[in-house]
Amino acid sequence: MKNSNSKITNVEVEYYQVPLDEVLNDAMHGDHTHFELILCRITCQDGNQGVGYTYTGGKGGKAIYSLLEDELKPFLMNENANRVEYLNDQMGWHLHYVGRGGLVSFAISAVDIALWDIRCKRLNQPLWCVAGGASNKTKAYAGGIDLNFSKEKLLNNIGNYLDKGFNAVKIKVGLPDYRTDVARIAAVRELLGKDRKFMIDANYSLSVDQAIKLANAVEKYDITWFEEPTIPDDYQGYGRISDCINIPTAMGENLHTIYEFGYAIAQAKLSYLQPDASNIGGITGWLKVAALAQANNLTLCSHGMHELHVSLMASQPHAGYLEVHSFPIDQYTKNPLKLVDGLAIAPQDAGHGVIFDMDLLAPHRIKI
Amino acid sequence: MKNSNSKITNVEVEYYQVPLDEVLNDAMHGDHTHFELILCRITCQDGNQGVGYTYTGGKGGKAIYSLLEDELKPFLMNENANRVEYLNDQMGWHLHYVGRGGLVSFAISAVDIALWDIRCKRLNQPLWCVAGGASNKTKAYAGGIDLNFSKEKLLNNIGNYLDKGFNAVKIKVGLPDYRTDVARIAAVRELLGKDRKFMIDANYSLSVDQAIKLANAVEKYDITWFEEPTIPDDYQGYGRISDCINIPTAMGENLHTIYEFGYAIAQAKLSYLQPDASNIGGITGWLKVAALAQANNLTLCSHGMHELHVSLMASQPHAGYLEVHSFPIDQYTKNPLKLVDGLAIAPQDAGHGVIFDMDLLAPHRIKI
Repeated sequence: MKNSNSKITNVEVEYYQVPLDEVLNDAMHGDHTHFELILCRITCQDGNQGVGYTYTGGKGGKAIYSLLEDELKPFLMNENANRVEYLNDQMGWHLHYVGRGGLVSFAISAVDIALWDIRCKRLNQPLWCVAGGASNKTKAYAGGIDLNFSKEKLLNNIGNYLDKGFNAVKIKVGLPDYRTDVARIAAVRELLGKDRKFMIDANYSLSVDQAIKLANAVEKYDITWFEEPTIPDDYQGYGRISDCINIPTAMGENLHTIYEFGYAIAQAKLSYLQPDASNIGGITGWLKVAALAQANNLTLCSHGMHELHVSLMASQPHAGYLEVHSFPIDQYTKNPLKLVDGLAIAPQDAGHGVIFDMDLLAPHRIKI
Repeated sequence: MKNSNSKITNVEVEYYQVPLDEVLNDAMHGDHTHFELILCRITCQDGNQGVGYTYTGGKGGKAIYSLLEDELKPFLMNENANRVEYLNDQMGWHLHYVGRGGLVSFAISAVDIALWDIRCKRLNQPLWCVAGGASNKTKAYAGGIDLNFSKEKLLNNIGNYLDKGFNAVKIKVGLPDYRTDVARIAAVRELLGKDRKFMIDANYSLSVDQAIKLANAVEKYDITWFEEPTIPDDYQGYGRISDCINIPTAMGENLHTIYEFGYAIAQAKLSYLQPDASNIGGITGWLKVAALAQANNLTLCSHGMHELHVSLMASQPHAGYLEVHSFPIDQYTKNPLKLVDGLAIAPQDAGHGVIFDMDLLAPHRIKI
C-alpha cells in the first residue's frame, strides 16, 4: 500500500453529554449526573476511517473538543495515518507547553484510538490480536460508583452485578466515618460469599493514616486491592500505605504520562496498575504502561471504557481484571460488553470493535 | 467589610492572539509567530474588579478559554472572592479528573491572579507589599528567544539588551551541532565582558549526555545557570547532569503543580527554581513554590509574564533574577516594565499593577 493512500484527509470532532440513569457518587468527584463523550473520526485519502474517543465524568470535555478541533486537527491533516506511535509522540511535543499530561493526554488519546482503529481495519484484524494477541477473553469486575447508596441499595446493586454474571465487584469507600465503610464492606463480603473477588476504591479521599486505619480494619474481608487510597501525586505516601497494610494497592486512572507511571512504579509499591486508554495517550500509551507493568512484575488492569479495554486486557498475558465501569459507554455501541462465565469477551470485528450506534448517541450531541 | 460585598457576580473571559514583531525560535517549540493571551475579569457585588490572565506560546489558548468560560465561571459565581487560597484549591479538585497540572493549571492561574488583584485593591496596596514586602525592586535579565538568529543578529540583539540597561542576558542553545552553540556562547560572553551575568537555555532539547557535553565545553564562559537541559519529566536525569557539570541548573516553567516542584527539588539537584504564575496556579501557586525554594535553600526566579512577576520577585527575600521574557505582554499594558540601574521596578498601583491597555489589545481579540 502506498503511504499516500493513508494520508489523513479529514478529522471530525463531536461532543456529547450522555445522562446517567441515576446519580452516581464517589468520595472526591461528588455527584455524577452524566458523562461527556468526545468523538474523533479520522478519514484517510483511500476512504479508510477510524473512530477514536475519550470521556470525562462531566467536566472539561469542551476544552478537549477545542484541543482536537483547534490544535490537533490542523496538525494531523495530510499526515500518514500509519505512523501511529510517531504521531502520538509528535502530538505530545506539539502541545508540550500546555501539556505534559492533563487535558492534552485526553485529546491525544482520542486521536490515537482512531488511528489504531484504522490500523486494525487495514490489517483486517480485531484489536485483541493486533495489540498483543494473548487471548480474546479477560477477567472482569463490576466497578460500582455507589458511595451515595444506602446499604440496602448498595447490596441490591451488588446483587444485580451477580445476576449479570460478575464474580468480582468493587465498591466506593471514603465516608466521613470509616466505621460506616467497614460495615458496608462487611455486608458486601457476606453477600458475595468467600470465593468472589472484592475490591475497594477511595478515589484518593483519605490521608495516609486514614487509609492505613481503614485497610487494617477490613483486612479480614479478603480485599483483592485498595484503589487510590490517597492523592495520586503522593507516590511515597502510597509506599507508606503499602508498607503498613496487608491489602495490595492499585492506581492509574489519574496518571496521564508514562513518566508518572514510572515514578509510581518506583515509589508507590503498587501491585496493580490501572491505566485508562482515554487519558494515558490512547492505545499507544496504554500499551507502554503494559510494558512497564510487565517489566516490573506488576498486574495490569484498566480503568473505564470497558468496551475498548476488553480487547487490550485480553491481548496481554499479565492482565488482571477489566473494570466494567458504571459509565455505560458500551450501551451506546452496537456491541455492548458480553460476559461468559464471568469473563469479558473481546469483539471479533476488524478494528478496535467499538462501533457507536449514532442513532442512540444523536439525541445527546451538543454542537459547539 | 461584609463578605456579601465580595460575592463574585460576574466572570468575563476574553481571548487574544497577539503577533510578535519577528519570528522567535527555540530548540523545542519551533517558530513563535504570536502569543495567546487569555484574560479573566472578575467583578464582585460591590463593584470591585480584578483582572487575571494567562498566556501560551501559540497553542491551547482556546481550550483554556473553554475551561474558564464553561467550567470555572459557573463554579465561581456567588463565591466569596476573599477566600483566594481556598478557591484555588477547590478549583483544582473541581477539575481534578481532567487536571493535576497541564491546561487546568493555566485556567486556575488566570482566576487566581484576578482574585489577588481584588485582594490588593481592597487593601489599597501594591502586590509587592501584599505578597511578601521584601522590596519593590528585583534583579532582572533579558531572556532571548533567538535560536534562529544568525550569530550577527544574536550579537545585535544582545547589544540591544545592553542598551536598554540589562546587565544579565540569556540565550537559547540546542542547535544540531553543539559546537555551534559553543561558538555562539563564546561570542556572547566576549560581547558581555566578564562582569555581566549570562545564562543558557536548551528548552529540554538535549539528552543527559548531550547536556553534560555542552555544559563542560562552555564552563569557562562563566554561565550563571543552564536552564532545562533535558525533559522536565526526568528529575533523576537532571540530578545526573547536575552531578557531572560545574554550571548550576534551573527549571520550572514546565512544572504545573507544587508536587512536581517537590519531586524536582528532591531529585533534580537544581540551584534555581523558575515557577511561572501563569501556569503554576497563579500567585497562590507561585508563592507556594517560593516557600518550597526557601525551605530548600534554593534561589527563586521566574519565567515569563515579567510585568506581573516583577512584583512577586521583588517581594521575596530569596529572589534571584526576574526573566524579562521575549513575549512583550507588558507592551500592552499602561505601565511597561521599567529598569533602573539594571533592576526592575515593581508597580506602585494598588492591585497587581498589570493594567492592560484595552485600546492596544482590542485589534487582537478573537471572539469565541
